[in-house]
Amino acid sequence: MTNLVRRLPHPADFPAPPTAADRVRWTAADTAARPERLARLRAKMAAEGIDAYFGVRPEHMRYLTGFTLDDGEDRVAGHSGRFLISADQVVVLADSRYRLQAAAQAPGARIENTTYDLAAIWPELLRGLGARRVAVEAAHVSHQLWGELAAATPDVELVPAAGWVESFRAVKEPAEIERIRAACGVADRALATLLRHIKPGKTEHDLALALEWEMRTGGGDGLAFGIACLAGPNAALPHGSPSAREVHLGQVLLFDFGAMVDGYRSDMTRTLFMGEPSERDLAIYETVLEAQAASLAMLSAALRGEAAVPSGKAADAAARAVIESAGHGDHFGHGTGHGIGLATHELPSLSRAATDDPLPSPTVFSVEPGIYLDGETGVRIEDLVLFDTSRKDLEILTSFPRDPVVIGV
Amino acid sequence: MTNLVRRLPHPADFPAPPTAADRVRWTAADTAARPERLARLRAKMAAEGIDAYFGVRPEHMRYLTGFTLDDGEDRVAGHSGRFLISADQVVVLADSRYRLQAAAQAPGARIENTTYDLAAIWPELLRGLGARRVAVEAAHVSHQLWGELAAATPDVELVPAAGWVESFRAVKEPAEIERIRAACGVADRALATLLRHIKPGKTEHDLALALEWEMRTGGGDGLAFGIACLAGPNAALPHGSPSAREVHLGQVLLFDFGAMVDGYRSDMTRTLFMGEPSERDLAIYETVLEAQAASLAMLSAALRGEAAVPSGKAADAAARAVIESAGHGDHFGHGTGHGIGLATHELPSLSRAATDDPLPSPTVFSVEPGIYLDGETGVRIEDLVLFDTSRKDLEILTSFPRDPVVIGV
Repeated sequence: MTNLVRRLPHPADFPAPPTAADRVRWTAADTAARPERLARLRAKMAAEGIDAYFGVRPEHMRYLTGFTLDDGEDRVAGHSGRFLISADQVVVLADSRYRLQAAAQAPGARIENTTYDLAAIWPELLRGLGARRVAVEAAHVSHQLWGELAAATPDVELVPAAGWVESFRAVKEPAEIERIRAACGVADRALATLLRHIKPGKTEHDLALALEWEMRTGGGDGLAFGIACLAGPNAALPHGSPSAREVHLGQVLLFDFGAMVDGYRSDMTRTLFMGEPSERDLAIYETVLEAQAASLAMLSAALRGEAAVPSGKAADAAARAVIESAGHGDHFGHGTGHGIGLATHELPSLSRAATDDPLPSPTVFSVEPGIYLDGETGVRIEDLVLFDTSRKDLEILTSFPRDPVVIGV
Repeated sequence: MTNLVRRLPHPADFPAPPTAADRVRWTAADTAARPERLARLRAKMAAEGIDAYFGVRPEHMRYLTGFTLDDGEDRVAGHSGRFLISADQVVVLADSRYRLQAAAQAPGARIENTTYDLAAIWPELLRGLGARRVAVEAAHVSHQLWGELAAATPDVELVPAAGWVESFRAVKEPAEIERIRAACGVADRALATLLRHIKPGKTEHDLALALEWEMRTGGGDGLAFGIACLAGPNAALPHGSPSAREVHLGQVLLFDFGAMVDGYRSDMTRTLFMGEPSERDLAIYETVLEAQAASLAMLSAALRGEAAVPSGKAADAAARAVIESAGHGDHFGHGTGHGIGLATHELPSLSRAATDDPLPSPTVFSVEPGIYLDGETGVRIEDLVLFDTSRKDLEILTSFPRDPVVIGV
């Protein structure tokens, strides 16, 4: 039987926000790491007989070149920020709006002017790189653009490249882990601050906005993603948005949220109890907690050397088995976890569809089983963990208590 | 000579925030308009010999089906929200996370379960619709997905569809215009509220956060896009992000920002003067204001029946000519304007690359010339206008004064 937590966690229980010195150190660490990141890509290019890599994902642009677009900015940036990497050059495209910023953030790159018509300059760009076989991020380049580029350079072979940089990014550098850890701390503290203000009659929307404010004024540069704050039956919507619904005693209150610190994201879900939990809700909570513990135990055992490094599929199955034996297999539709870093969802995946390969290391991912009863209630418990085979145990980066917390009374 | 505005505008000068009744009316208007929106698409499909339309843009999903993902949610939604429209059916894809939400928001649609492997269910989906020629949003479907879908149904022809729904959405319904107007009011009031708190020593970041807070607690459901707050030389970065730079007397302070109301967006730029403007900054300001006035005058003349409806290219050229004759042609790299609605940037475009077709009507777009001197200063003035040939004059939806406003003293 799980203990109900009635003494609320306090903001001071969690690490302090990042300092200006931390940020200077992280920027320097990225600059220092970029040659190695590029070398890894160039080795892959050489192995595949590729002369140039055409990248379009904003996360890859930042990771490999330094040029950084804010969330959502890529929607209006046109081709700005897209980049080409050859054996000896890095080219970043930027129209007049972004030229100065790109030059400042990507000093190792040549900044090339672009317009909305990338195909018009494509032949010249490739000629400048001497590129005849070009790898393209085919999962992120539109079919239309691919066609335009292919038509513009009929003598060049475009080769779909899927998951190259994604697989590099799954393995985290120390300064990347520091930023995810800092983002987890920002989120932990924000929820602890909010707890005392959660009272019956507040709306999901009000609470989500207040939680956002705490993160953004408490060391976060932004949100990792839109906050889910879901009360009672709404908690059965695993990705619902906060509504004008009021929270009431006797209901669950689910927060799924994360902070962003210097581009790196956290992700945590807590399902709190407004007043005394119902028997049904508490039973589900305990099953979900047990499911999460099963997955965490498997990961810990591998780090302690008591078992082989599991695959994402095995780590998912460990949690899923607990939920299935409780009779809730049909009420847990999503995967058990996902990698996180510059993107909220990245490799590795912990799911039924994941590969049988052992998990990479060091890497950071979520462990987040849930049970959802349509129209009734829902419970999810999500933490981020650092899985690092050079260390003796799993580090859980999100520190907010996982035992059921009673609030609002 | 432009008058300096020294008596600051007051929040009460601008319209009140939208009410709950407004929101109920808008939702009803969307529901009522959806059959006509679908009929327009189906007429286009029939004309092109298309059996089904496969859409992936979140704006199109909302416009045609009702299912609405929050900003950024599409990054983690997988195929959820993608949709198929045939002559007599609407199918919305949703995995377990979104199924209940999709059913509630798109009652006219059949909700089909999906996983990350869309190609696996694609043949069955198309068979259910009897579709042999399928239009696909080729500018938004990845090259990889296109290839997977094509391979899954070799007997089906995939036809690239570019700009179909975009061109429908350029023409705005009354309830769409109401929401953009409401979003403009939220933004106007927020800036007027902030003005009194702008003092030397505040940072760009602090001011951007305060402005965001005013919009989000003053009737906005969110931001239209990340706020640009740029002081002094930073204003030469037309799409820069707010930094830790402090604002000082004698500098310009540029805000480019917008609110979102029920999914519809506003967009406005004001370049304010911290204390007395320098001669250089004021001269640039006056040129930009004159450029904007030239474009607005051309649009007004068309509505008053004194001239033909101009193209987006002509409306751009009118503003650009003023800036060029002032010798700043090289310092105005971007287009003069863009349509706005469910997306921040949509049709019509006011730019050198725009078509020679007359502007659509009724439509809403920005008029936003600018002059940027690298490393020195920048000025942009941006308003949204309603261009409606059934009315006798242009309506400027953003009401904040366009004359130069002096603050911080």
